[in-house]
Amino acid sequence: MKRLLILASLVGAAPALADEGMWTYNNFPAAKVKEKYGFEPNQEWLDKVRLASAKFGGGCSSSFVSPDGLVMTNHHCARGCIQQLSTAKKDFIANGFYAKTQAEELQCPALEVSQLVEITDVTAQLNTATQGLTGKQYADTLKAEMSKLEKACTTGADVRCDVVTLYQGGKYNLYKYQRFQDVRLVFAPEHAIAFFGGDPDNFEFPRYDLDVTFARVYKDGKPAKTPNYFKWSDKGAKEGDLTFVPGHPGRTSRGLTVAQLEYLRDVGLPKQLFRLSEIRGMVTEFQNRGVEQKRISNNLLFGVENGLKATKGKHEQLVDKAFFAQKVAAEQELRRKVDADPKMKAKYGAAWDEIARAQDAFRNMRKEYDSIEPGLGSQLFNVARTLVRASDELVKPDTERLRGFNDAGLPGLKNQLMSKAPIYPELEIAQMTFTLTKLREELGADHAFVKKVLGKESPAALATRVIKGSKLADLKLREQLFSGGKKAIEASKDPMIQLAALVDPDARAIRKTYEEQVEAVIRKNSELVAQAKFEVYGTGIYPDATGTLRLSFGSVKGYMEDGKQVAPITAMGDTFARHTGEDPFALPKSWLAAQKDLTATTAMNFVSTNDIIGGNSGSPVINKDAQVVGLVFDGNIQSLGGDYGFDESVNRTVSVHSEALIEALKKIYKADRVLEELRPGSTPTVKANPGL
Amino acid sequence: MKRLLILASLVGAAPALADEGMWTYNNFPAAKVKEKYGFEPNQEWLDKVRLASAKFGGGCSSSFVSPDGLVMTNHHCARGCIQQLSTAKKDFIANGFYAKTQAEELQCPALEVSQLVEITDVTAQLNTATQGLTGKQYADTLKAEMSKLEKACTTGADVRCDVVTLYQGGKYNLYKYQRFQDVRLVFAPEHAIAFFGGDPDNFEFPRYDLDVTFARVYKDGKPAKTPNYFKWSDKGAKEGDLTFVPGHPGRTSRGLTVAQLEYLRDVGLPKQLFRLSEIRGMVTEFQNRGVEQKRISNNLLFGVENGLKATKGKHEQLVDKAFFAQKVAAEQELRRKVDADPKMKAKYGAAWDEIARAQDAFRNMRKEYDSIEPGLGSQLFNVARTLVRASDELVKPDTERLRGFNDAGLPGLKNQLMSKAPIYPELEIAQMTFTLTKLREELGADHAFVKKVLGKESPAALATRVIKGSKLADLKLREQLFSGGKKAIEASKDPMIQLAALVDPDARAIRKTYEEQVEAVIRKNSELVAQAKFEVYGTGIYPDATGTLRLSFGSVKGYMEDGKQVAPITAMGDTFARHTGEDPFALPKSWLAAQKDLTATTAMNFVSTNDIIGGNSGSPVINKDAQVVGLVFDGNIQSLGGDYGFDESVNRTVSVHSEALIEALKKIYKADRVLEELRPGSTPTVKANPGL
Repeated sequence: MKRLLILASLVGAAPALADEGMWTYNNFPAAKVKEKYGFEPNQEWLDKVRLASAKFGGGCSSSFVSPDGLVMTNHHCARGCIQQLSTAKKDFIANGFYAKTQAEELQCPALEVSQLVEITDVTAQLNTATQGLTGKQYADTLKAEMSKLEKACTTGADVRCDVVTLYQGGKYNLYKYQRFQDVRLVFAPEHAIAFFGGDPDNFEFPRYDLDVTFARVYKDGKPAKTPNYFKWSDKGAKEGDLTFVPGHPGRTSRGLTVAQLEYLRDVGLPKQLFRLSEIRGMVTEFQNRGVEQKRISNNLLFGVENGLKATKGKHEQLVDKAFFAQKVAAEQELRRKVDADPKMKAKYGAAWDEIARAQDAFRNMRKEYDSIEPGLGSQLFNVARTLVRASDELVKPDTERLRGFNDAGLPGLKNQLMSKAPIYPELEIAQMTFTLTKLREELGADHAFVKKVLGKESPAALATRVIKGSKLADLKLREQLFSGGKKAIEASKDPMIQLAALVDPDARAIRKTYEEQVEAVIRKNSELVAQAKFEVYGTGIYPDATGTLRLSFGSVKGYMEDGKQVAPITAMGDTFARHTGEDPFALPKSWLAAQKDLTATTAMNFVSTNDIIGGNSGSPVINKDAQVVGLVFDGNIQSLGGDYGFDESVNRTVSVHSEALIEALKKIYKADRVLEELRPGSTPTVKANPGL
Repeated sequence: MKRLLILASLVGAAPALADEGMWTYNNFPAAKVKEKYGFEPNQEWLDKVRLASAKFGGGCSSSFVSPDGLVMTNHHCARGCIQQLSTAKKDFIANGFYAKTQAEELQCPALEVSQLVEITDVTAQLNTATQGLTGKQYADTLKAEMSKLEKACTTGADVRCDVVTLYQGGKYNLYKYQRFQDVRLVFAPEHAIAFFGGDPDNFEFPRYDLDVTFARVYKDGKPAKTPNYFKWSDKGAKEGDLTFVPGHPGRTSRGLTVAQLEYLRDVGLPKQLFRLSEIRGMVTEFQNRGVEQKRISNNLLFGVENGLKATKGKHEQLVDKAFFAQKVAAEQELRRKVDADPKMKAKYGAAWDEIARAQDAFRNMRKEYDSIEPGLGSQLFNVARTLVRASDELVKPDTERLRGFNDAGLPGLKNQLMSKAPIYPELEIAQMTFTLTKLREELGADHAFVKKVLGKESPAALATRVIKGSKLADLKLREQLFSGGKKAIEASKDPMIQLAALVDPDARAIRKTYEEQVEAVIRKNSELVAQAKFEVYGTGIYPDATGTLRLSFGSVKGYMEDGKQVAPITAMGDTFARHTGEDPFALPKSWLAAQKDLTATTAMNFVSTNDIIGGNSGSPVINKDAQVVGLVFDGNIQSLGGDYGFDESVNRTVSVHSEALIEALKKIYKADRVLEELRPGSTPTVKANPGL
């Protein structure tokens, strides 16, 4: 991972001919793609791609792959649903799932798929409203204006609208989404092949995973019509082919200032890693409690290990001295240019130091903010806190509420609150005990908040009492408390409600201090830095990822690692050579049984130069005809530093090849119904196979 | 912890009048102490203090407190022994221990106390031997010369000699120790009061711990005669009193170059912290397996939590931007002065860059070195490795052996190898599984060494097989394999021996590369940096801590924290206000029962400005008459950054007050025999107490 990057992203200038950027659909560098790859996407093509793409749950990507609402995403994106539908007796994570008929498709307890149907630039409107304001006034006004815009746009329960902050505030766009809240599971392979190689192989390549799940969105109890969808490519992806990846990259930090990066390198990322490491140790050992405990904690462990490895990669990038020196040099260059122009200097000159000051202010409040604000490590506590906050917020005018409690967001909030996803008390107690222990450790046993929360109880005793004592698993009770408002909350004897009510004033207070003294200052001054970049380098640049729909381009291409060339495509047959019989290198029985029927040379996984980041999981890889040639499920280890800068020489997207998907559905899973939907008229071949 | 330090230690100059420094006994700043405190220790005083002090085990300090070999140290220093002597039925950790008669004193399975009896300066001899040499030649020669000196000095099995590298190689001293290998437990309180407040209160103040243990050294089956010992003070320590702390501070890094500190800040410390955090999570949850599992893992957990908190404090110091900037400035100043003098420039000018290059070289081999060299996380494996290595090393000439296998070190090695300390297979399996999992994670599943170790087994399967299959818990077998040499090792079917033999060539190879390409270069050039400091700033400076006997001075003094004055002494009565009844704030029954008899105003714990670091645990605090006024057991949280620089305004040593020790021994534990030994003739008072 040691390398010297010379990155366009470092200076904020438009990348020359690198395959860099997670582009918005209203500022896509079509001419540049034409120049490099000979194909120029027009607006019609971009619109179609946008509408055939969908956000999957809170943090993944997906695509429509049939006109009848069939959605393709990763197994690891649908894990939550698959686990929630499983029981101790029917373990779909271990054994996979296939609905042979539409009637067998099972509804996911708490899942939403959303499609970006409209983008409106609202920068001018917001800038006008906040002109000349700073601090609390700036933050309040911005929040109120955003709320207003979102509310006006939200025309029904199946619509969601978000004002999206792009370029650190350089631009604001209003994104309107079509929501699909009835999502049903259609097909999932066994975890053992979806995540073959497990944590050791995660973020590595060569790779041999079938990380796929098919789901279907419903409307009024019937499969939804999705006229914009991606057809299947007959040819798949070959080395050198132009590839596009539409999806929802979660967050990049390429536009951050040096002071912000220093904070992340020295404090932010290490603190996250200490915590994730400890949780990982705890959950890994929790799994030894028994088979059922292993099942209920698998999902948590997967998420923690994935986050840990990804965050370590980011940290490694920032402690790369050569990389960091370039970031410093780039900022100095921009500041020199700004300072050389008296007008720009007056407008933007102080912004970097203001951000540094706010960042220092945060260093001093970090412990309290990180300990008090994020909750107490329990889902039941989160439910309680939502109920307590709703009772306080919903009586206020819309524009004055905490974000998340605005009218525009209520349907989503309610949906989450009423989730049928199972809650496991034993795991809850372990997690809450951990969080309370950390709280006491970070703030010290003598801190007023710690004393208030724990009293004379130990973390374990408190966690056990409130989790065992709470009735909030009961959705009817949640409904009653939600509709009963403040009065119902105050009358509740539920220990979790009482705990949430006890700690909420402190959480709100620290959040307010943070928002006013840190967030508002950084927001305001980041806007200025972004505007300075536009003024110095032009607007042909892409914004940092924000969890919203983007499009990246690239091509299927290997790379050099430790002096060796890594080939871009792996073969299905080689999957079996990696099988040791021991988890996580144990193939499922279905694969071992079907081995003789499979064409060994079928393309299995491949890498491409598309610029992606966490959140792109589940994105389709499409060719210039907008046909599916693959399914993104990972980045290589070198891509993790992509949070701070893109290096085309080694940064790679890792995908399941479209050929492997078809071969497996056909010969291993005999999922004819899915195959027929993906490639109408092509399925019967399976019947001719003498091996079946 | 945010503060701006202006530290003498930063520039390497002699500290002015700060209570800074962990001084050697042949370069103590007596005149300075006189100037500040009006008392000038003479050589006789220094010799007496040195001979009444002792190293306790591998990493703690202690003192002789009677002429009959009574040793005082911390409970947490003797924990290993106390736990090893405990069984599922007799838990001395939980319930404490008191030998009412000498016959009841129990021998610790693997513990050594050693007394520094002679110091010889051997700098000239070593410098002459290595003159003009670099790289491997330099390292080999230095090692051989050290071995020779140590061997010549070692006159018997009860003598150990070490060449100690001071001032990063600016000086070399030969330290000769009297070894006491028969150490018996005399008295230990309950863990609940020895470590009252547990991890949350660790490194904090105000504090209320009775972290003490008394042991006795034996010679030929009888209490050893220790004519040099500390008497007990009648007056104890009062605010403002001059205090001395003799002891064995483990390691400080105040003399490191900026490149070395950068490495620690960005890579070294974070990596340690990730690992410790994960182990902590694992062991914390392992404790939930059951009562016995909790008991056998308590010691490990304590060590991990202690190390974690201490290392976090160090990391926080290094990410303090103002502190780091001063380190950079100090180095630049020294280098400017060196460069300004052509002679010095020629001799020392390149040293800093050479160290930086070696540090960068280590960055690139760190993963392999850290994964392969330190063993596989199992005590049985360590035993196996020692046996395997001994069979290879002991046939070589003394000067060519791996360090640790020299003739001079053999008695200690054998002592450790034949330790009767229990080994718990269940915990061994958990730890080894963890270590093997990390190995695969750090190096990747495709790394040759990982494939060699794991083959087709999972980490858990391999760990279980070799630990359950090994017979090395049997001391007779160890003896046979040790004396049987290479032939016995090669013939052994013990799976742990076979594993150790399998991996040892790789471990030796990476260690060799490290020693030649990193260690030797850093050693050689650190010598030059240290010599440059002597030349620029004079020799009135102290060396970084090296685990060897030092002496620090200071006074009993409070400090400011978060804008409030922290009083320097706590009262025994306030201990009860902190009792919640829940671990780690649950006082033992003995204390609750005796509460009414205790004098509430008895001094409990106190802080002083003595400059100490980890390894000083168990040090006595003495007054100018060399009488015991306290027992060091901790530093405050601000002292953790003391690894890199001392800040007298807030850096504090935390000790048990001598008054509390007497009050507790008398009224709570009725340990008359110990009391009488500490203060001959004063014990009978206890009999007059009507509460007994």
